[in-house]
Order: sequence, then C-alpha cells, then structure tokens
Amino acid sequence: MTKSPRPIYLDHAAATPLDPQVLAVMQPFLGDDFYNPSATYQAARDVRKALEKARSDVAHWLGARPSEIIFTAGGTEANNLALFGILRKYPGSHAVSTAIEHDSILEPLSGLSAEGWRSTLVSPTDQGLIDPKAIAAAVTDKTVLVSVGYANNEVGTIQPIRQISREVETIRSGRLKRGLKLPLYFHIDACQAGNYLDLHVARLGVDLMTLNGGKIYGPKQSGILYVKAGLQLRPLVAGGGQEHGLRSGTENVAAFVGLAKALNIAQNMRNEEVKRLQTLQILFTQLVKSNLSTGVINGSLKHRLPNNVHLTFPGTDNERLLIQLDEAGIQAAAGSACSASDEEPSHVLKALGLSDADAQASLRFTFGRATTKQDIEKTVELLASLTGAR
Amino acid sequence: MTKSPRPIYLDHAAATPLDPQVLAVMQPFLGDDFYNPSATYQAARDVRKALEKARSDVAHWLGARPSEIIFTAGGTEANNLALFGILRKYPGSHAVSTAIEHDSILEPLSGLSAEGWRSTLVSPTDQGLIDPKAIAAAVTDKTVLVSVGYANNEVGTIQPIRQISREVETIRSGRLKRGLKLPLYFHIDACQAGNYLDLHVARLGVDLMTLNGGKIYGPKQSGILYVKAGLQLRPLVAGGGQEHGLRSGTENVAAFVGLAKALNIAQNMRNEEVKRLQTLQILFTQLVKSNLSTGVINGSLKHRLPNNVHLTFPGTDNERLLIQLDEAGIQAAAGSACSASDEEPSHVLKALGLSDADAQASLRFTFGRATTKQDIEKTVELLASLTGAR
Repeated sequence: MTKSPRPIYLDHAAATPLDPQVLAVMQPFLGDDFYNPSATYQAARDVRKALEKARSDVAHWLGARPSEIIFTAGGTEANNLALFGILRKYPGSHAVSTAIEHDSILEPLSGLSAEGWRSTLVSPTDQGLIDPKAIAAAVTDKTVLVSVGYANNEVGTIQPIRQISREVETIRSGRLKRGLKLPLYFHIDACQAGNYLDLHVARLGVDLMTLNGGKIYGPKQSGILYVKAGLQLRPLVAGGGQEHGLRSGTENVAAFVGLAKALNIAQNMRNEEVKRLQTLQILFTQLVKSNLSTGVINGSLKHRLPNNVHLTFPGTDNERLLIQLDEAGIQAAAGSACSASDEEPSHVLKALGLSDADAQASLRFTFGRATTKQDIEKTVELLASLTGAR
Repeated sequence: MTKSPRPIYLDHAAATPLDPQVLAVMQPFLGDDFYNPSATYQAARDVRKALEKARSDVAHWLGARPSEIIFTAGGTEANNLALFGILRKYPGSHAVSTAIEHDSILEPLSGLSAEGWRSTLVSPTDQGLIDPKAIAAAVTDKTVLVSVGYANNEVGTIQPIRQISREVETIRSGRLKRGLKLPLYFHIDACQAGNYLDLHVARLGVDLMTLNGGKIYGPKQSGILYVKAGLQLRPLVAGGGQEHGLRSGTENVAAFVGLAKALNIAQNMRNEEVKRLQTLQILFTQLVKSNLSTGVINGSLKHRLPNNVHLTFPGTDNERLLIQLDEAGIQAAAGSACSASDEEPSHVLKALGLSDADAQASLRFTFGRATTKQDIEKTVELLASLTGAR
C-alpha cells in the first residue's frame, strides 16, 4: 500500500504544529524535572529557575519586566483574565471593543453585561479595519477598558494599534485635566500576531496583551497575559497565589518553558518568514484572479497578516467545499475553528457586510512554516476545479 | 566524578512524576496529531475522537456519563469552577466548607465573600476529621453548596464523604417538604484521592468532584470537574464554548488523553498500591516511635491516605530540617507546597490545634510508586540523627 502524500495544511490560524525544538526543551520537565516549583529542595528550586528564565525570555520580546508576565492556560483564559479581571475591579464600569473580536472577548463581555456591566462594540470598515476615531468616540467617562484584536483570526486584518493607543492616551490626559480618577486601560489580543508582528508593548502603547502558545508552534493551553506594572486586576483562578496571585495552580513548567522557546523562535525568524509568506500570499491572490471564475477576497490586503487568504465563492456551501478539499488532501477552514459547535454564519464576516449566504460560502486559508509555492498552486488548481475555472 | 545517588522523593502530595506510559500516549498529540479538534477535516475529527475517548475513559472510573466530565487546566481551576460557577449562579447564597481545605477552595470563598456571598467553615477534630453532623448544622436555608476535601493534602485524613452526602440528602428532602426551591449541591475536592480511593460518584453521593492530573502521575495543569447532569453553573473561562460551554479554549488534547491514561493506571493498581503503601506507612510510624526521641504524628492514622506521614518535632524549625534532609538526599515538605510564597504557619495544622511554633516544626512525608522499605528506613535514620535518637 502506498502511503498517501502529506496533506497540505492551510489552517495555521486554528492550530500550529509543535516545533520539535520546543518539544525538546519541554522534555526534561515531562521527565526527571517534574518537581513542584514551589517546593523547598534544590531540585524543585532548579525547576523554579527554569520557569523564571522562561518568564524573562518572554519579557525580552515584549520589552517588559518579568514581573509583568503572567503565564496562563491559553489565549482564551488570558483574554478572560484581562476582561473579567479589570471590569470586576470597577463595578458598573464600561468596556469598548469591536464587533470582530474572538469569542473569548465577546463572550466574557456578554457574561459581564448580564451582571450589570456595559460594553460598546465598534464596527469595522468593510475591509475589516477599525477606525481609531471610532474607538475614541465610543469611550465614555465610565469606560475602564478598551480591548482590540491586534490581528483578526478570520480575515487576518491588522489593526492600527499605535493610533488607537494614542487616542486612548489623549482621553487619559483629558480625564486627568478634568480630575476624573477612573483609569483607562488598553488591552490587545495578540493571539494571531505572535509569529508576524512586533510585540514590543511600549512601542505599541498597550497596558495588557494576550499571547497564545498554541498559535506560535508552542504547546496548546499555554498563554501569556502581559499586565503593565502597577495595574490591579482580579484573579480569575484563585488559590495558592502562583503567577503573582493572578493565576493559581501548580505551574505547567514544561508548557511555559516551551512557550518561551516558541516565542524566541517565532520572533527570531519573523522578518524572514513575513517576506516568504507575503510572496506566497501574492501568488495565491494572483492565481485566484487569473484562474478562478469566482472568488472574492475578504478584508484589506494591505493591512493583513502575511499568512492569511480569505475568499468567498458566492453560491457555494463552504462545508461542502471543505470536505472536497480535505478528500483531495488540503486542510482549510470555514472561518474560525475556535467555536466548538457553532453553526451560525461568522460574526466577523457579517460585520464586514457579507450576507449570511456569502458568509457561508467563504473559506479561510492560513499558511505556515511548511507551506510551499507548490502547495499554493495545487490549492488554487483544486479550487478552480471545484468552483469553476476562468 | 561519581554520580550522586537517586534522591529519595517523599513529596508526592506536591507533584508526581509523569508516568512514562502516560507520556507515551501523549506523544502523538505533541507531534503529527496537533490539530484543533474543532476543525472540519478528517485528521482533526480523529483528534476529537481521541479527546472524547479520553472523556469516556474518565467517566468509566467515576461511574459517570462522558457529558458530565469537564476537562480543565488543573485541580485549582476545577475547584474554582465549582465554587464560582455555582455561587455566582445564586446571588446572595451561602456555602459550607471546612477550615482545612486547600487554598483553591478557601481563596475563591474569600473572594466571593468580598462580593457579597457568605460561607461557613467547619472546624475539624484534633485528628483532622470533619463531623458530618457539624456540616449539617452549618447548612442554612441559603446554602447552595457544601464543599469538602475527600482527603487532606497536608495530613492525609480521609473524610466520611458518604455520611456527609447522607446529611446533605436529608436536608434536601426537608427543603422539598417545606417547598423551599434552592438546590443544595455537594462538591468534593478529590485531588489527593485519585491514586488511593474509590471515585464512583454515585457511591460517594456527590454532585461535583475535582480531580488533578498532576497528582496521579499525569500531566500538570490537567484536571477534571465532574458535574452531575442537569446541574447548571456559570463558566469561569468563556469563549468558543468548548467543554459544554464550561471551559472555553482550544483543548489540550495531549494533556487530557494523558490524564485519562493516568487515571486508568492509578485506579487499576489502586488496591495493590494501597496495601503496599500501608505497609510502608506502618513501618514509618513504628520506626518513628522506636527510634526517635521526639516526633508527634499529626492527624488520624485510621482514616488516612496510605502514603502520608506527618510529624511534628517540637522545638525544631521545619525549613532548616528540610534543607538538611535535602542535603542528605531526601526530598520532603513542610506542609503544602501549593502556596507559592506563603510564610505563614499552615492553616490546616492550626485548625488541628497546633501552636504556630509546632506548625512550623512539622514535616510532611508523602510516598509514591517508587518508594521502598529502604527509603523509609534511611529517612527515619536521618531524622534520628537530626532531631535526636531515642
């Protein structure tokens, strides 16, 4: 029996394979170095040192202090910690976010709304971009938190974080002059950004930032919340007081050491990989235009992650297309895979102005380190045969 | 240079090594089977199947339905989910727990108390046992949750869970007769119980139960909350709706498959291992009595985990003793290692009636699968030389 060829994996926004170098640094902590880092004996203190080294490594890429890095069990938990943590600290306060955020932002906001908090969701342009002025306009004197996704997990649009942070800063100065004491914090969900964008928190001008190990070739359910020094928030998981009291529970040292290594690798190869993937992205969109009779590209091409192509094939059913692609050895997605059993059309695509039918005729292709020119050519070839060639 | 001999690890209540068989079943999911289990293609659906198989395996040992098993990122998180999840569902309600619980129970109760909930902590006997009648007496018409640790993490005492559940059942019947609609749920923290005790939820008569992979030779930050069918609770981490909406975030399939395997192994070898460890426990206590001039055993010997010996050496300093033991190759604990940086005397020992000085002169020895008769003999020998021989 011949082994079927390696599938072409174009769903890196849903999950990235664990880098073998990452697994290698995790192995000791899955073996002899299993100790609880809070124990007293030397071997446990050595495990603690490895954990704190990982924290320093992460801090380096963010231009942050190690004490500002909170390890969490994933990006969803880090987003929840930011939102619940800050809003619960200020009863009756208000949050501003956007209509195209991940469910791990929208669901906590909706849960908080049931408990008496309020939030405003800013709509994007039809290109999927958030206008910094629209964020500023949504902020009221009760707003304590602005939360914006750095790069969208469906259409890959990159938001103007620096401009938004300048708006936030202007509002802060205004509050100060008026003697208003409520702080205004700026959180970004950078889960999709770790491989491709600058993560320096001072340059970005953010107070909180979420990262996700499972999206940067690191372990699943490993995440980071950067929390600017001095900022107070409620813990989501309370107990032994680990992670500066913000995330209790015996630390998953293997995962956090792996996450730090994954971030090192991703940020070191970032510029080179962005260039390589941009070439593939241009190839993909050009082949779509020249070879397919249909296929509308969603979202800004200019302000976009280099590994994302998102297409609508009007009149088709994306679930059916996905199965056909899978049978031909191509693994892609219909919007986000992060919703466990969501049959609704994507809220992101609807916010961009797509009809329900068009949203359910859309496919997401997200490339990664192993993606080649041949993979892209084969994918478009197959799409032509499935949806009609030019 | 000669390699120093293998240290004698007697801190299994703090962390257990990962069983190599567990790591083996995890490996595929740390490699080729990295897919997001919510994705559509066949390879991802196969990963989903492995996750659901793990859930069924866990359900088997609990006598539960797979849909009643929620995978969490650890025991602390599962305890938090139980407490916050139920109490937040009933504003103004009351909880009954005990003074010897783990911080992952006490801290959420204290956090909820700041938000307007109330709780009553029942004191143990000087043997560390909880009287079921005392639990019943603490329940008021506002009580919605009783939470008791199955086996104590410091002194290893095993609580009379079946008798407590009968008390809870009696109160429920009384409420029904009086037309009182508030439910009364019974949660147990079984983190220390997974290796040695029966986990059948119907036999125990519990509505919620916490288990911790990191204490049963499984992966760290992997946990389970059993939630009886029909019971409603608020999620702690909201988002994509994974784990029946109670724990969002891309599933850590490697960890959960490992956790299920770890539970299989632990429960399969349970009876045999309990007998073996009881022999070591008796040996330890007898050697203490016959060889040490001091050394008071804390907590009931009759109702106790077979792997726990807890001693006070009046007039000594436990941190100093631990360092001396460590230098001689014995790794033990001063109370719980779960508190990251807690310098306070153990709240468990104080609840048993020990003075601050005696609490800080106490050591916990917890055996495991690799512990031998020779390890015990060497430990007591060393304790004799450090604290004075008879």
